[in-house]
Amino acid sequence: MERINKQIEFLIEIDRLKSINRRNYISDGARNENDAEHSWYFAMAALLLAEYSNEKIDMQKVIQMALIHDIVEIDAGDTFIYDEKAKKHQHDKEQKAAERIFGLLPDEQKKFMYDIWNEFEENITKESKFARSIDRLVAILLNDISDGKAWKEHNIEYSQVYEVNKRIAEGSSKLWALVEKIINKAADEGKLDKDPANHSSY
Amino acid sequence: MERINKQIEFLIEIDRLKSINRRNYISDGARNENDAEHSWYFAMAALLLAEYSNEKIDMQKVIQMALIHDIVEIDAGDTFIYDEKAKKHQHDKEQKAAERIFGLLPDEQKKFMYDIWNEFEENITKESKFARSIDRLVAILLNDISDGKAWKEHNIEYSQVYEVNKRIAEGSSKLWALVEKIINKAADEGKLDKDPANHSSY
Repeated sequence: MERINKQIEFLIEIDRLKSINRRNYISDGARNENDAEHSWYFAMAALLLAEYSNEKIDMQKVIQMALIHDIVEIDAGDTFIYDEKAKKHQHDKEQKAAERIFGLLPDEQKKFMYDIWNEFEENITKESKFARSIDRLVAILLNDISDGKAWKEHNIEYSQVYEVNKRIAEGSSKLWALVEKIINKAADEGKLDKDPANHSSY
Repeated sequence: MERINKQIEFLIEIDRLKSINRRNYISDGARNENDAEHSWYFAMAALLLAEYSNEKIDMQKVIQMALIHDIVEIDAGDTFIYDEKAKKHQHDKEQKAAERIFGLLPDEQKKFMYDIWNEFEENITKESKFARSIDRLVAILLNDISDGKAWKEHNIEYSQVYEVNKRIAEGSSKLWALVEKIINKAADEGKLDKDPANHSSY
Protein backbone atom coordinates (compact mmCIF):
# COMPACT_ATOMS: atom_id res chain seq x y z
CA MET A 1 0.00 0.00 0.00
CA GLU A 2 3.03 2.33 0.13
CA ARG A 3 2.51 3.41 -3.48
CA ILE A 4 -1.23 4.11 -3.28
CA ASN A 5 -0.77 5.95 0.03
CA LYS A 6 1.65 8.36 -1.64
CA GLN A 7 -0.81 8.94 -4.46
CA ILE A 8 -3.68 9.65 -2.06
CA GLU A 9 -1.48 11.97 0.02
CA PHE A 10 -0.69 13.92 -3.17
CA LEU A 11 -4.39 14.10 -4.08
CA ILE A 12 -5.29 15.48 -0.67
CA GLU A 13 -2.43 17.99 -0.89
CA ILE A 14 -3.46 19.35 -4.28
CA ASP A 15 -7.02 19.95 -3.09
CA ARG A 16 -5.52 23.15 -1.67
CA LEU A 17 -5.34 24.57 -5.21
CA LYS A 18 -9.06 25.33 -4.74
CA SER A 19 -8.10 27.96 -2.16
CA ILE A 20 -5.50 29.79 -4.28
CA ASN A 21 -7.21 32.80 -5.80
CA ARG A 22 -6.36 34.52 -9.05
CA ARG A 23 -6.69 38.25 -9.73
CA ASN A 24 -9.46 37.85 -12.29
CA TYR A 25 -13.12 37.26 -11.49
CA ILE A 26 -15.54 34.56 -12.62
CA SER A 27 -17.89 35.71 -15.37
CA ASP A 28 -20.60 37.17 -13.12
CA GLY A 29 -18.01 39.20 -11.18
CA ALA A 30 -19.22 37.73 -7.87
CA ARG A 31 -15.82 36.51 -6.68
CA ASN A 32 -12.27 35.84 -7.79
CA GLU A 33 -11.58 32.70 -9.76
CA ASN A 34 -9.47 30.07 -8.03
CA ASP A 35 -6.63 28.07 -9.57
CA ALA A 36 -8.46 24.72 -9.57
CA GLU A 37 -11.48 25.93 -11.49
CA HIS A 38 -9.18 27.95 -13.77
CA SER A 39 -7.31 24.73 -14.57
CA TRP A 40 -10.59 23.07 -15.57
CA TYR A 41 -11.59 26.07 -17.67
CA PHE A 42 -8.20 26.13 -19.38
CA ALA A 43 -8.49 22.40 -20.18
CA MET A 44 -12.01 22.84 -21.61
CA ALA A 45 -10.92 25.82 -23.73
CA ALA A 46 -7.94 23.85 -25.07
CA LEU A 47 -10.17 20.90 -25.96
CA LEU A 48 -12.61 23.21 -27.73
CA LEU A 49 -10.16 25.46 -29.57
CA ALA A 50 -7.49 22.93 -30.60
CA GLU A 51 -8.23 23.57 -34.29
CA TYR A 52 -6.71 27.07 -34.01
CA SER A 53 -3.21 25.94 -33.06
CA ASN A 54 -0.58 27.24 -35.49
CA GLU A 55 0.91 23.75 -35.66
CA LYS A 56 -0.39 20.21 -35.35
CA ILE A 57 0.02 19.30 -31.68
CA ASP A 58 -0.46 16.50 -29.16
CA MET A 59 -3.68 17.65 -27.48
CA GLN A 60 -3.44 15.10 -24.69
CA LYS A 61 -0.20 16.81 -23.61
CA VAL A 62 -1.85 20.25 -23.73
CA ILE A 63 -4.74 19.05 -21.54
CA GLN A 64 -2.24 17.60 -19.05
CA MET A 65 -0.43 20.95 -18.97
CA ALA A 66 -3.73 22.69 -18.23
CA LEU A 67 -4.46 20.33 -15.34
CA ILE A 68 -0.97 20.44 -13.82
CA HIS A 69 0.48 23.89 -14.64
CA ASP A 70 -0.76 25.75 -11.54
CA ILE A 71 -0.24 23.11 -8.83
CA VAL A 72 3.06 24.77 -7.80
CA GLU A 73 1.03 27.85 -6.78
CA ILE A 74 -0.11 25.94 -3.67
CA ASP A 75 3.28 26.93 -2.24
CA ALA A 76 4.33 29.78 -4.53
CA GLY A 77 1.04 31.68 -4.78
CA ASP A 78 -0.46 33.22 -7.90
CA THR A 79 1.51 35.93 -9.68
CA PHE A 80 -0.46 38.47 -11.65
CA ILE A 81 0.56 38.29 -15.29
CA TYR A 82 1.03 42.10 -15.34
CA ASP A 83 3.26 42.18 -12.23
CA GLU A 84 6.73 42.17 -13.84
CA LYS A 85 8.55 42.55 -10.52
CA ALA A 86 6.91 39.57 -8.84
CA LYS A 87 7.35 37.44 -11.96
CA LYS A 88 11.15 37.64 -11.59
CA HIS A 89 11.16 35.85 -8.24
CA GLN A 90 8.35 33.51 -9.10
CA HIS A 91 10.40 30.94 -10.98
CA ASP A 92 12.60 30.02 -7.98
CA LYS A 93 9.60 29.73 -5.69
CA GLU A 94 7.79 27.55 -8.19
CA GLN A 95 10.83 25.33 -8.69
CA LYS A 96 10.95 24.61 -4.95
CA ALA A 97 7.21 24.04 -4.89
CA ALA A 98 7.46 21.56 -7.77
CA GLU A 99 10.16 19.61 -5.89
CA ARG A 100 8.08 19.43 -2.73
CA ILE A 101 4.62 18.78 -4.14
CA PHE A 102 5.44 16.44 -7.04
CA GLY A 103 7.95 14.86 -4.65
CA LEU A 104 5.05 13.42 -2.68
CA LEU A 105 4.46 10.98 -5.55
CA PRO A 106 6.15 7.69 -6.45
CA ASP A 107 9.33 8.48 -8.43
CA GLU A 108 8.10 7.91 -11.98
CA GLN A 109 4.90 9.87 -11.37
CA LYS A 110 6.92 12.68 -9.82
CA LYS A 111 9.00 12.77 -13.00
CA PHE A 112 5.88 12.66 -15.20
CA MET A 113 4.21 15.59 -13.42
CA TYR A 114 7.43 17.58 -13.12
CA ASP A 115 8.23 17.15 -16.81
CA ILE A 116 4.77 18.34 -17.90
CA TRP A 117 5.00 21.37 -15.58
CA ASN A 118 8.56 22.15 -16.68
CA GLU A 119 7.68 21.89 -20.38
CA PHE A 120 4.92 24.44 -19.84
CA GLU A 121 7.29 26.69 -17.88
CA GLU A 122 10.11 26.57 -20.43
CA ASN A 123 7.70 27.49 -23.24
CA ILE A 124 9.80 25.97 -26.01
CA THR A 125 7.67 23.16 -27.47
CA LYS A 126 4.68 23.83 -29.74
CA GLU A 127 2.38 22.21 -27.15
CA SER A 128 3.54 24.64 -24.44
CA LYS A 129 3.13 27.61 -26.79
CA PHE A 130 -0.45 26.66 -27.62
CA ALA A 131 -1.18 25.93 -23.94
CA ARG A 132 0.08 29.40 -22.99
CA SER A 133 -2.09 30.96 -25.68
CA ILE A 134 -5.16 29.31 -24.15
CA ASP A 135 -4.10 30.21 -20.59
CA ARG A 136 -3.98 33.88 -21.67
CA LEU A 137 -7.16 33.72 -23.74
CA VAL A 138 -9.37 32.47 -20.90
CA ALA A 139 -8.14 35.26 -18.60
CA ILE A 140 -8.94 37.87 -21.28
CA LEU A 141 -12.42 36.39 -21.80
CA LEU A 142 -13.24 36.53 -18.09
CA ASN A 143 -11.80 40.01 -17.62
CA ASP A 144 -13.84 41.22 -20.58
CA ILE A 145 -17.11 39.54 -19.59
CA SER A 146 -16.82 40.81 -15.99
CA ASP A 147 -16.63 44.40 -17.32
CA GLY A 148 -12.87 44.71 -16.81
CA LYS A 149 -13.24 44.53 -13.02
CA ALA A 150 -9.78 43.05 -12.41
CA TRP A 151 -8.13 45.38 -14.95
CA LYS A 152 -9.63 48.41 -13.22
CA GLU A 153 -8.85 47.12 -9.73
CA HIS A 154 -5.16 46.76 -10.58
CA ASN A 155 -4.90 49.81 -12.87
CA ILE A 156 -4.00 47.75 -15.90
CA GLU A 157 -3.84 49.70 -19.12
CA TYR A 158 -4.54 48.71 -22.69
CA SER A 159 -0.86 48.79 -23.67
CA GLN A 160 0.06 46.30 -20.93
CA VAL A 161 -2.70 43.93 -21.96
CA TYR A 162 -1.64 44.27 -25.58
CA GLU A 163 2.08 43.67 -24.91
CA VAL A 164 1.59 40.67 -22.63
CA ASN A 165 -1.08 39.00 -24.75
CA LYS A 166 0.32 39.49 -28.22
CA ARG A 167 2.40 36.39 -27.48
CA ILE A 168 -0.85 34.45 -27.97
CA ALA A 169 0.14 34.60 -31.66
CA GLU A 170 3.10 32.29 -30.92
CA GLY A 171 0.63 29.47 -30.27
CA SER A 172 -2.27 30.64 -32.39
CA SER A 173 -2.35 33.59 -34.75
CA LYS A 174 -6.13 33.10 -35.14
CA LEU A 175 -6.77 33.34 -31.40
CA TRP A 176 -4.55 36.41 -31.18
CA ALA A 177 -6.65 38.05 -33.93
CA LEU A 178 -9.73 37.30 -31.82
CA VAL A 179 -8.15 38.61 -28.61
CA GLU A 180 -6.98 41.77 -30.37
CA LYS A 181 -10.60 42.47 -31.35
CA ILE A 182 -11.82 41.76 -27.81
CA ILE A 183 -9.34 44.11 -26.15
CA ASN A 184 -9.85 46.86 -28.72
CA LYS A 185 -13.61 46.66 -28.12
CA ALA A 186 -13.02 46.56 -24.34
CA ALA A 187 -10.97 49.78 -24.64
CA ASP A 188 -13.74 51.41 -26.75
CA GLU A 189 -16.30 50.44 -24.11
CA GLY A 190 -14.21 51.82 -21.24
CA LYS A 191 -13.54 48.43 -19.64
CA LEU A 192 -9.83 48.93 -20.24
CA ASP A 193 -7.97 52.23 -20.03
CA LYS A 194 -6.45 53.42 -23.25
CA ASP A 195 -2.83 54.46 -23.10
CA PRO A 196 -2.31 55.95 -26.56
CA ALA A 197 1.16 57.30 -25.69
CA ASN A 198 2.52 53.80 -25.22
CA HIS A 199 0.80 52.06 -28.04
CA SER A 200 0.60 54.05 -31.20
CA SER A 201 -0.94 51.36 -33.40
CA TYR A 202 -4.20 51.51 -31.51
CA MET B 1 -16.21 34.22 -37.51
CA GLU B 2 -19.57 32.44 -37.01
CA ARG B 3 -17.84 29.25 -35.84
CA ILE B 4 -15.44 30.86 -33.37
CA ASN B 5 -18.23 33.04 -31.97
CA LYS B 6 -20.25 29.93 -31.12
CA GLN B 7 -17.24 28.39 -29.39
CA ILE B 8 -16.61 31.53 -27.33
CA GLU B 9 -20.29 31.79 -26.41
CA PHE B 10 -20.13 28.20 -25.14
CA LEU B 11 -16.98 28.95 -23.13
CA ILE B 12 -18.62 31.93 -21.47
CA GLU B 13 -21.74 29.87 -20.74
CA ILE B 14 -19.84 27.02 -19.07
CA ASP B 15 -18.04 29.43 -16.75
CA ARG B 16 -21.27 29.20 -14.73
CA LEU B 17 -20.23 25.70 -13.62
CA LYS B 18 -18.00 27.50 -11.08
CA SER B 19 -21.15 28.64 -9.27
CA ILE B 20 -22.83 25.21 -9.02
CA ASN B 21 -22.09 23.86 -5.56
CA ARG B 22 -21.84 20.23 -4.52
CA ARG B 23 -22.85 18.84 -1.14
CA ASN B 24 -19.31 17.94 -0.11
CA TYR B 25 -16.72 20.36 1.24
CA ILE B 26 -13.18 21.12 0.10
CA SER B 27 -10.54 19.47 2.27
CA ASP B 28 -10.27 22.20 4.91
CA GLY B 29 -14.06 22.24 5.38
CA ALA B 30 -14.19 26.01 4.73
CA ARG B 31 -16.79 25.88 1.96
CA ASN B 32 -18.61 23.55 -0.41
CA GLU B 33 -16.77 22.36 -3.48
CA ASN B 34 -18.10 23.62 -6.80
CA ASP B 35 -18.59 21.57 -9.97
CA ALA B 36 -15.76 23.22 -11.93
CA GLU B 37 -13.05 22.56 -9.37
CA HIS B 38 -14.50 19.08 -8.81
CA SER B 39 -14.12 18.41 -12.54
CA TRP B 40 -10.45 19.39 -12.33
CA TYR B 41 -9.93 17.23 -9.25
CA PHE B 42 -11.64 14.26 -10.91
CA ALA B 43 -9.41 14.65 -13.99
CA MET B 44 -6.24 14.84 -11.85
CA ALA B 45 -7.27 11.77 -9.84
CA ALA B 46 -7.98 9.83 -13.04
CA LEU B 47 -4.58 10.78 -14.48
CA LEU B 48 -2.88 9.72 -11.26
CA LEU B 49 -4.74 6.48 -10.57
CA ALA B 50 -5.13 5.09 -14.10
CA GLU B 51 -3.02 2.06 -13.19
CA TYR B 52 -5.80 0.75 -10.93
CA SER B 53 -8.41 0.35 -13.66
CA ASN B 54 -9.71 -3.23 -13.88
CA GLU B 55 -9.23 -3.10 -17.64
CA LYS B 56 -6.90 -1.38 -20.06
CA ILE B 57 -8.65 1.85 -21.02
CA ASP B 58 -8.35 4.96 -23.17
CA MET B 59 -7.27 7.50 -20.55
CA GLN B 60 -7.76 10.48 -22.87
CA LYS B 61 -11.47 9.56 -23.01
CA VAL B 62 -11.66 9.29 -19.21
CA ILE B 63 -10.08 12.74 -18.79
CA GLN B 64 -12.57 14.18 -21.29
CA MET B 65 -15.42 12.60 -19.30
CA ALA B 66 -14.08 14.22 -16.12
CA LEU B 67 -13.96 17.64 -17.78
CA ILE B 68 -17.39 17.42 -19.43
CA HIS B 69 -19.56 15.20 -17.18
CA ASP B 70 -21.00 17.93 -14.93
CA ILE B 71 -21.60 20.73 -17.47
CA VAL B 72 -25.30 19.77 -17.67
CA GLU B 73 -25.62 20.74 -14.00
CA ILE B 74 -25.51 24.42 -15.04
CA ASP B 75 -29.20 23.92 -15.89
CA ALA B 76 -30.08 20.77 -13.96
CA GLY B 77 -28.28 21.48 -10.68
CA ASP B 78 -26.26 19.04 -8.63
CA THR B 79 -28.02 15.95 -7.28
CA PHE B 80 -26.65 14.44 -4.10
CA ILE B 81 -25.52 10.89 -4.79
CA TYR B 82 -27.49 9.67 -1.73
CA ASP B 83 -30.76 11.37 -2.76
CA GLU B 84 -32.55 8.48 -4.51
CA LYS B 85 -35.76 10.47 -5.10
CA ALA B 86 -34.06 13.40 -6.84
CA LYS B 87 -31.92 11.06 -8.92
CA LYS B 88 -35.05 9.68 -10.66
CA HIS B 89 -35.95 13.03 -12.20
CA GLN B 90 -32.39 14.11 -12.80
CA HIS B 91 -31.88 12.27 -16.05
CA ASP B 92 -34.63 14.14 -17.95
CA LYS B 93 -33.41 17.49 -16.67
CA GLU B 94 -29.84 16.68 -17.66
CA GLN B 95 -30.92 15.50 -21.10
CA LYS B 96 -32.58 18.87 -21.76
CA ALA B 97 -29.54 20.69 -20.38
CA ALA B 98 -27.22 18.72 -22.67
CA GLU B 99 -29.36 19.69 -25.70
CA ARG B 100 -29.30 23.36 -24.78
CA ILE B 101 -25.72 23.81 -23.61
CA PHE B 102 -23.86 21.55 -26.07
CA GLY B 103 -26.26 22.93 -28.69
CA LEU B 104 -24.45 26.28 -28.45
CA LEU B 105 -21.52 24.67 -30.29
CA PRO B 106 -20.91 24.01 -33.99
CA ASP B 107 -22.63 20.72 -34.91
CA GLU B 108 -19.68 18.33 -34.82
CA GLN B 109 -18.43 19.73 -31.51
CA LYS B 110 -21.95 19.48 -30.08
CA LYS B 111 -21.95 15.81 -31.07
CA PHE B 112 -18.45 15.28 -29.61
CA MET B 113 -19.37 16.79 -26.22
CA TYR B 114 -22.80 15.14 -26.13
CA ASP B 115 -21.36 11.71 -26.92
CA ILE B 116 -18.73 11.96 -24.15
CA TRP B 117 -21.37 13.09 -21.64
CA ASN B 118 -23.81 10.40 -22.77
CA GLU B 119 -21.20 7.64 -22.57
CA PHE B 120 -20.49 8.65 -18.97
CA GLU B 121 -24.22 8.74 -18.20
CA GLU B 122 -25.00 5.35 -19.74
CA ASN B 123 -22.20 3.72 -17.76
CA ILE B 124 -21.71 0.80 -20.14
CA THR B 125 -18.16 1.18 -21.50
CA LYS B 126 -15.07 0.35 -19.44
CA GLU B 127 -13.95 4.01 -19.67
CA SER B 128 -17.23 5.21 -18.13
CA LYS B 129 -17.03 2.60 -15.37
CA PHE B 130 -13.53 3.67 -14.41
CA ALA B 131 -14.50 7.35 -14.63
CA ARG B 132 -17.43 6.74 -12.28
CA SER B 133 -15.13 4.95 -9.83
CA ILE B 134 -12.88 8.02 -9.72
CA ASP B 135 -15.85 10.40 -9.45
CA ARG B 136 -17.00 8.48 -6.34
CA LEU B 137 -13.50 8.09 -4.89
CA VAL B 138 -12.73 11.84 -4.85
CA ALA B 139 -16.01 12.57 -3.05
CA ILE B 140 -15.21 9.93 -0.41
CA LEU B 141 -11.70 11.36 0.06
CA LEU B 142 -13.00 14.89 0.62
CA ASN B 143 -15.82 13.78 2.91
CA ASP B 144 -13.34 11.79 4.96
CA ILE B 145 -10.66 14.49 5.16
CA SER B 146 -13.23 17.14 6.14
CA ASP B 147 -14.27 15.00 9.14
CA GLY B 148 -17.46 13.73 7.52
CA LYS B 149 -19.02 17.21 7.57
CA ALA B 150 -21.26 16.63 4.53
CA TRP B 151 -22.24 13.13 5.70
CA LYS B 152 -23.30 14.48 9.09
CA GLU B 153 -25.08 17.49 7.61
CA HIS B 154 -27.24 15.27 5.44
CA ASN B 155 -27.62 12.40 7.92
CA ILE B 156 -25.88 9.92 5.68
CA GLU B 157 -25.23 6.55 7.26
CA TYR B 158 -22.48 4.03 6.74
CA SER B 159 -24.79 1.56 4.96
CA GLN B 160 -25.77 4.17 2.36
CA VAL B 161 -22.16 5.09 1.69
CA TYR B 162 -21.29 1.41 1.43
CA GLU B 163 -24.14 0.54 -0.95
CA VAL B 164 -23.62 3.49 -3.29
CA ASN B 165 -19.83 3.25 -3.41
CA LYS B 166 -19.34 -0.49 -3.69
CA ARG B 167 -19.93 0.07 -7.43
CA ILE B 168 -16.41 1.54 -7.47
CA ALA B 169 -15.37 -2.12 -7.85
CA GLU B 170 -16.94 -2.17 -11.34
CA GLY B 171 -14.21 0.18 -12.55
CA SER B 172 -11.47 -0.70 -10.07
CA SER B 173 -11.50 -3.46 -7.50
CA LYS B 174 -8.27 -2.03 -6.02
CA LEU B 175 -9.76 1.41 -5.47
CA TRP B 176 -12.88 -0.14 -3.92
CA ALA B 177 -10.62 -2.03 -1.47
CA LEU B 178 -9.06 1.32 -0.56
CA VAL B 179 -12.42 3.08 -0.20
CA GLU B 180 -13.79 0.24 1.93
CA LYS B 181 -10.89 0.77 4.35
CA ILE B 182 -11.44 4.54 4.37
CA ILE B 183 -15.16 4.30 5.17
CA ASN B 184 -14.68 1.58 7.77
CA LYS B 185 -12.08 3.77 9.51
CA ALA B 186 -14.38 6.82 9.15
CA ALA B 187 -17.15 4.85 10.89
CA ASP B 188 -14.74 3.79 13.67
CA GLU B 189 -13.73 7.42 14.15
CA GLY B 190 -17.33 8.65 14.31
CA LYS B 191 -17.14 10.62 11.05
CA LEU B 192 -19.85 8.37 9.61
CA ASP B 193 -22.79 6.89 11.52
CA LYS B 194 -22.83 3.13 11.74
CA ASP B 195 -26.06 1.43 10.83
CA PRO B 196 -25.36 -2.18 11.79
CA ALA B 197 -28.98 -3.30 11.21
CA ASN B 198 -28.70 -2.55 7.50
CA HIS B 199 -25.25 -3.82 6.84
CA SER B 200 -24.44 -7.03 8.61
CA SER B 201 -21.01 -7.60 7.07
CA TYR B 202 -19.59 -4.61 8.89
